[in-house]
Amino acid sequence: MDAIVALAKRRGFVFPASDIYGGINGFWDYGPLGVALKNNIRDSWWRAMVECPPVGPDGEPLQIVGLDSSIIQNARAWEASGHVGGFSDPMVDCRESKSRYRADQLVCAPVQREDDESGEVLAWLAVAEGSEAPDDFRKRADKLLKKKGGGRSAAPAELVAFADLPTETRAQVMGPDASEPGTLTEPREFNLMFQTYVGALATEDTKTYLRPETAQGIFLNFRNVLDTSRVKVPFGIAQVGKAFRNEVTPRNFIFRSREFEQMEMEFFCHESEARQWYDFWKNERLRWWEGLGVSSDRLRLRDHDEDELAHYSSACVDVEYQYPFTAPNYGELEGIAHRGCHDLSAHTEHSNAKLEYFDPVKKERFTPHVIEPASGLTRAVLVVLCEAYTVDETRPSNELMKIPSRLAPIKVGVFPLVAKDGLPELARPIYEDLRQRWTAQYDAKQAIGKRYARMDEAGTPYCVTVDGDTKADGTVTIRDRDTGAQERVGSDRIVEYLTERLG
Amino acid sequence: MDAIVALAKRRGFVFPASDIYGGINGFWDYGPLGVALKNNIRDSWWRAMVECPPVGPDGEPLQIVGLDSSIIQNARAWEASGHVGGFSDPMVDCRESKSRYRADQLVCAPVQREDDESGEVLAWLAVAEGSEAPDDFRKRADKLLKKKGGGRSAAPAELVAFADLPTETRAQVMGPDASEPGTLTEPREFNLMFQTYVGALATEDTKTYLRPETAQGIFLNFRNVLDTSRVKVPFGIAQVGKAFRNEVTPRNFIFRSREFEQMEMEFFCHESEARQWYDFWKNERLRWWEGLGVSSDRLRLRDHDEDELAHYSSACVDVEYQYPFTAPNYGELEGIAHRGCHDLSAHTEHSNAKLEYFDPVKKERFTPHVIEPASGLTRAVLVVLCEAYTVDETRPSNELMKIPSRLAPIKVGVFPLVAKDGLPELARPIYEDLRQRWTAQYDAKQAIGKRYARMDEAGTPYCVTVDGDTKADGTVTIRDRDTGAQERVGSDRIVEYLTERLG
Repeated sequence: MDAIVALAKRRGFVFPASDIYGGINGFWDYGPLGVALKNNIRDSWWRAMVECPPVGPDGEPLQIVGLDSSIIQNARAWEASGHVGGFSDPMVDCRESKSRYRADQLVCAPVQREDDESGEVLAWLAVAEGSEAPDDFRKRADKLLKKKGGGRSAAPAELVAFADLPTETRAQVMGPDASEPGTLTEPREFNLMFQTYVGALATEDTKTYLRPETAQGIFLNFRNVLDTSRVKVPFGIAQVGKAFRNEVTPRNFIFRSREFEQMEMEFFCHESEARQWYDFWKNERLRWWEGLGVSSDRLRLRDHDEDELAHYSSACVDVEYQYPFTAPNYGELEGIAHRGCHDLSAHTEHSNAKLEYFDPVKKERFTPHVIEPASGLTRAVLVVLCEAYTVDETRPSNELMKIPSRLAPIKVGVFPLVAKDGLPELARPIYEDLRQRWTAQYDAKQAIGKRYARMDEAGTPYCVTVDGDTKADGTVTIRDRDTGAQERVGSDRIVEYLTERLG
Repeated sequence: MDAIVALAKRRGFVFPASDIYGGINGFWDYGPLGVALKNNIRDSWWRAMVECPPVGPDGEPLQIVGLDSSIIQNARAWEASGHVGGFSDPMVDCRESKSRYRADQLVCAPVQREDDESGEVLAWLAVAEGSEAPDDFRKRADKLLKKKGGGRSAAPAELVAFADLPTETRAQVMGPDASEPGTLTEPREFNLMFQTYVGALATEDTKTYLRPETAQGIFLNFRNVLDTSRVKVPFGIAQVGKAFRNEVTPRNFIFRSREFEQMEMEFFCHESEARQWYDFWKNERLRWWEGLGVSSDRLRLRDHDEDELAHYSSACVDVEYQYPFTAPNYGELEGIAHRGCHDLSAHTEHSNAKLEYFDPVKKERFTPHVIEPASGLTRAVLVVLCEAYTVDETRPSNELMKIPSRLAPIKVGVFPLVAKDGLPELARPIYEDLRQRWTAQYDAKQAIGKRYARMDEAGTPYCVTVDGDTKADGTVTIRDRDTGAQERVGSDRIVEYLTERLG
């Protein structure tokens, strides 16, 4: 993963936000290549959802319309959605170090001497959850024993989540950054929404939040869309946009960041057909990810267990990906949830707006049920970067990015072999022509191997090079990123050649 | 303007945000047609800036790369940019009504009896600035006189800004929502940035802001872009994204909203060439707006006066548009500013990062100067709506939206004349074909006149209708939105016909 993060920064895909000010934890900026990649994924999703939605089981294209709602909404919307009351993590504070931890990410065990058969508990230690937690525990336990007369600590039989310890034990635990036991508070709920005030005064009345998801903006506009479009149930409303969560421990590069982008669609249907649409979207979304070029052996569907489901949800499935930092396990990429009529009912209750649908054929009035395929654009960028990253020692660069052509930030590089002998004069018009059709980059400087290496790392599928032979016979070489092979092609056939491959 | 706002809501271009909760002042949601229109404008700007930038004075295409930086950045970035210290409006509070006003938007005059030649001042009244201010003043003054024994008030000789009154007079003014004089406070500075806290604790250290402009994200990444791209000065970095300003009085529909979208580009060049690039971008940007279909007689360039310029800026010009609510005057649409090296210098000073450029040919190290064409995507949507809005009493709808074809949310409607007689069976395959190429809408219900009316209001340039003759001779009618004329075209020629017109 470190190699991918390094390449992402080095080539201008993703930078730490506020880099020159030492950064800001959980925020990332997308550089020239990153924004192009992100836009291409966004456009691909938008096209598949809104501009040319899939064909439904009856052979007719589905009706899905787009939306772009505000990040800041009336606070009552977040009360209705349950985010004000319930969107929180249990947090533990350390009175000594002033650090804060997610209660479910702190694991603890008793410190005991390896050779002490009585099993006397000398202290309770907490460390951050993760694969290195047992080592961290041993290190700190040994250090503690040194103070208490030496000896080596026993390996912890089991690391238990802080929240799962009895209250009296919790009161004795020594926090990960503390030097004394008993410094941790009881777990307390911490809301994940960023709070702000609208208007001049900061009062309870003017308090509101940055949206933690784009989905609620869709429910807020259900009525407006129904009244102004020609859609009929079943239909969908789709939205791409930023969302914000004040994560306590943002981590794993752009996987869990505090500002991120979502691609969400709410599909409204009759209760009796909801299960069928749930299955439809489950398959459709998996197919979409595969179509994006994600290898199917690193993708899987995982149905949520009964106890993972929200009380209103009768089914939920995650599209998961085997990220480098989760392997051999998988991490979430998209969730497809059967949300019942929970959201529309909750907003009806809080707003008194009638969020119903009248079926003119069956003369039936009902609150639609909702199937929600909710994926992360930010995570999609991460997955495409992970999939594309390839090590190949035989290349001018040891690394190349096999980004699918249609997602590649730059489609074609145009190079004169050397910046003299009239070659730039031949290469520039080719560039001028190609840039009207595809994102193209012209580069005349440095050794050609270096320029190929740069394009390999940028994921550029094709490079057109003008050389001495171009002057003689009008041909150029076109290099294929994935094979490294070069083909001689007549200058007048470049567009045709690339069109066949890039579309 | 009211008619445009009404149509925008009725047809699903723009809805008030949190509509079912009574809205939230200064926030708007973009419906199915609005988001499509907005995306089309965004893509047009992005293409003209990043994907295929203009050709410079030397005949070579300019180098401009894209960026997408975080909305939330390290607070130090906003201290450096001057927004923490200076991005504020002078505000006046009313102690009685608890209302707050922008000091420069509150106008005042003394209340005097029309027939009282002594000119005795009975009170000072403030009303909101605007074309109706004199009437509002008279109404309230008359009401006040009624309490004081009647008589009609004299028309105010002049309405003076609250801030321009002497302090002792300000202390006697009666606010617009007050019933007693002397209720207004002295003007106080009010920062326009939305504030929030990152992390679990709300302290001075964790306080930060939502960006009030996208531009600073570009300056923060100047070094990163220079280090990772192949750009050389002169070059540009462009960004489209949301920005937030806690406007005290959001108004005029989406013209001044609290959450809006910007399209900004910073063009970095040598000081000696800055003036030339300023002129270049001034012309280029005006041309772009004209190319978007905005009529040139409602567009103008207005050079800022010396006293309007920021201390570091040597020139600034606004592209202005004659909005319905400013006519016959003009309002801002885009600003093209010569910012000198102010921003890079300020960030260098605050971050200690060297934001310089080394010219390898001239062996010269310098801080680039910046020309900034900064426009509003939200305002662009407004301008396109205003330009498109056309009243035509001869139409099935009295209103139509002459949106340029390439910006139109829906490019083509496909209708069977009636939903029977086998016509839908002929129309559906046509729709299925067209939707692969352009955004298309299929609609089989209601009288054909109503469907045309809907498409006129949606700004759909073409409608394809299948009728009885289609069965007989395989032709359809294609209706042109702007002329209302219908042409019979063979089914096999529809794509060719539309390609010629839509591209």
